[in-house]
Amino acid sequence: MNILDIIDKKEKGETLTKEELKYTVEGYLNGTIKDYQMSAFLTEIDLLGLSEEETINLTDIMLHSGETLDLGINNLSDKHSTGGVGDKTTIVLAPLVASLGVKIAKMSGRGLGHTGGTIDKLESIQGFQTSMTLDKFKNQVNEIGLALVGQMGNLVPADKKIYALRDVTGTVDSIPLIASSIMSKKLASGASNIVIDLKVGSGALVNSLDEAKKLANLMVKIGKNNNKKTSCVLTNMDEPLGYAIGNSLEVIEAINTLKGKGPEDLTNLVIKLGGLMTHMALNIDEKIAEEKVKENLYNGKGYQKMLEWIQAQGGNIENIKIAKNKKTILAKNEGYISKIDALEIGKLARKIGAGRLNKDDQIDLTVGIILNHKVGDYVQKNEPLAEILYNDKQITDEEFLSCYSFTNQKIDKPKLIIDIIK
Amino acid sequence: MNILDIIDKKEKGETLTKEELKYTVEGYLNGTIKDYQMSAFLTEIDLLGLSEEETINLTDIMLHSGETLDLGINNLSDKHSTGGVGDKTTIVLAPLVASLGVKIAKMSGRGLGHTGGTIDKLESIQGFQTSMTLDKFKNQVNEIGLALVGQMGNLVPADKKIYALRDVTGTVDSIPLIASSIMSKKLASGASNIVIDLKVGSGALVNSLDEAKKLANLMVKIGKNNNKKTSCVLTNMDEPLGYAIGNSLEVIEAINTLKGKGPEDLTNLVIKLGGLMTHMALNIDEKIAEEKVKENLYNGKGYQKMLEWIQAQGGNIENIKIAKNKKTILAKNEGYISKIDALEIGKLARKIGAGRLNKDDQIDLTVGIILNHKVGDYVQKNEPLAEILYNDKQITDEEFLSCYSFTNQKIDKPKLIIDIIK
Repeated sequence: MNILDIIDKKEKGETLTKEELKYTVEGYLNGTIKDYQMSAFLTEIDLLGLSEEETINLTDIMLHSGETLDLGINNLSDKHSTGGVGDKTTIVLAPLVASLGVKIAKMSGRGLGHTGGTIDKLESIQGFQTSMTLDKFKNQVNEIGLALVGQMGNLVPADKKIYALRDVTGTVDSIPLIASSIMSKKLASGASNIVIDLKVGSGALVNSLDEAKKLANLMVKIGKNNNKKTSCVLTNMDEPLGYAIGNSLEVIEAINTLKGKGPEDLTNLVIKLGGLMTHMALNIDEKIAEEKVKENLYNGKGYQKMLEWIQAQGGNIENIKIAKNKKTILAKNEGYISKIDALEIGKLARKIGAGRLNKDDQIDLTVGIILNHKVGDYVQKNEPLAEILYNDKQITDEEFLSCYSFTNQKIDKPKLIIDIIK
Repeated sequence: MNILDIIDKKEKGETLTKEELKYTVEGYLNGTIKDYQMSAFLTEIDLLGLSEEETINLTDIMLHSGETLDLGINNLSDKHSTGGVGDKTTIVLAPLVASLGVKIAKMSGRGLGHTGGTIDKLESIQGFQTSMTLDKFKNQVNEIGLALVGQMGNLVPADKKIYALRDVTGTVDSIPLIASSIMSKKLASGASNIVIDLKVGSGALVNSLDEAKKLANLMVKIGKNNNKKTSCVLTNMDEPLGYAIGNSLEVIEAINTLKGKGPEDLTNLVIKLGGLMTHMALNIDEKIAEEKVKENLYNGKGYQKMLEWIQAQGGNIENIKIAKNKKTILAKNEGYISKIDALEIGKLARKIGAGRLNKDDQIDLTVGIILNHKVGDYVQKNEPLAEILYNDKQITDEEFLSCYSFTNQKIDKPKLIIDIIK
């Protein structure tokens, strides 16, 4: 077996065997297959696709490329988001479902994107520890039903190495490569129930609904093939989620949401995802599960669980720091907002320091953007559209306003939950 | 401009501008674009193709990536072969057309393949110098009308670097990449008339006639676009050319051919290619040109020119060394030979040392195979099929016989000249 024959076989459109995929992934990990050869192979997959069977095999090979986590706790649940602008969902959702008895032992990432990842965001809480020993992690899940840390152990090293290469070779946007990357990591972390929030739209990894459905079906299939309950919720990411973009601002919005005072879209998303997770983990009817989630969102039990969780990891939610300088952006015209470009808003947030362009960039956790309006809202001329909270870098009015479109016609609010695949 | 956007644009099927292609090739040469990124880009081209305009632009960019040769001599002719098993054509053809006044200032390569390249083969002639100063090269062409050396100057460095990468990433067999590679080198070496012998068949770079025709048309178009007379002859490479395979054996066969005692296929090929070259260079009717070539093949003038040429480069065609050990392979059955697999015969010749597997392998110039028969010949049981001339490594009867197929039906000799595109 050699990589040139495998590249050639793939070029001819033939199906690769599990042995051939294993040879390729393992060879790349141990260095006998070079970056430029793996890049050719990944480009082939990007252009020609992989069959369902090949994708399931690839996922399994990646899953077993390193350690897998086994806490010895039954029926754990995990949630994954493919990432979007203003996406603080996990910080609300995890304590909320934990307050109903769903057990969450979750690892999250740092963000290489417009704003930080969940771990970056949580670090804007004073004292919050994002790493701990495996014993403490396990004990915390057993005691309060919830623990959330950064990456732990050498899980799926193949994905780390392959993802880094995809990032610099234009092969990020391949459905089978995304599916195998996400699912190998979820499977390695040992949860029995997996819910994926698959973002669709201008600010998301996947822009087209068609592609998103393919990806969702593939991930659900891979999950079930591994005997895990798996659901995928397709949600709109054309405009940012909620009003806050930026690490500490998003944590504050998450806290407010758990107090029952969150933005409508984020609140609805949390109820839908939470209902699904509770339904899957506790085996109760989905509608009833949703009602229970709603109850705990408004009766303070979700918020209490959050306080318990933050405290267990050493954090203090008082005095979350936000940047001192504030700039208000005014609307230039009146009308209905027809578009707030999530991707461009994300890039502006990154520009003032809320996200990373390169892996080693330092994030400014205190800066960000607070929107006053969402798509469908009517605004008057000179009405404040948003506040920029900044330190050393700035956003001009022109840059900010170029993310918006207006119309004179009343328009519907965009539908947040597009589809559920399970 | 950045390479990820260019990779993305190509993936979407959009046409790349000349500036984008230039950015890519120059970036790769100067190291700002990495091997793994160029590999992704080349894989895209391999799978998606390039438009004619893109291929012409790519060739031009590669052509100007280094020095170009200008000897200050008008109306030079060049011949290129895409390479095959037993292909000693240049050694016969160059002195033959030079004897008619066609001026040849040719650079040839070493072989990375089944047998050596023309330069390797010529080195089996005692004393033959394959490198010289530019002044001596120019003077020799002016004095005797013919000089042939190895690579000279820093011509088309982009092709050197890109070809080395294609070789290890499964992107050798792309029509636009082959066309731009061959034509950029031919154009850089400064000839006004270019004839390409494009081999088609099991022992060739291109196996399918369809692909070969596309490649031929593309190369002729690129040549004309650069104001060069360009013709492409498609010739059969299912069985080896001539009877001799192996460096010194091929030189001896080339000498015999110039004495009018060559194999029928090689002789016919030399007459066809020579007629075309003479027609293009001297502007005489092609049929008449062919007759002149034939004349000089049988009246000894071509052979005299060869002696003059070899002498000018310090060589002595007496005492060409061949391996001392000889093994005769006998036919196991009687019948008509229906196939002699050129590729497999080439691999066997390489196995005993006649070719290189890796760039730095040492060639044994003295070893090789002499066939006694060609496809279409009838052989008796136990009749000698071939002689193996070897030193330290051997070929088994089974290995050798597995390259042959036999039939009871009389069959036609395969047609050598398949098509001419100009």
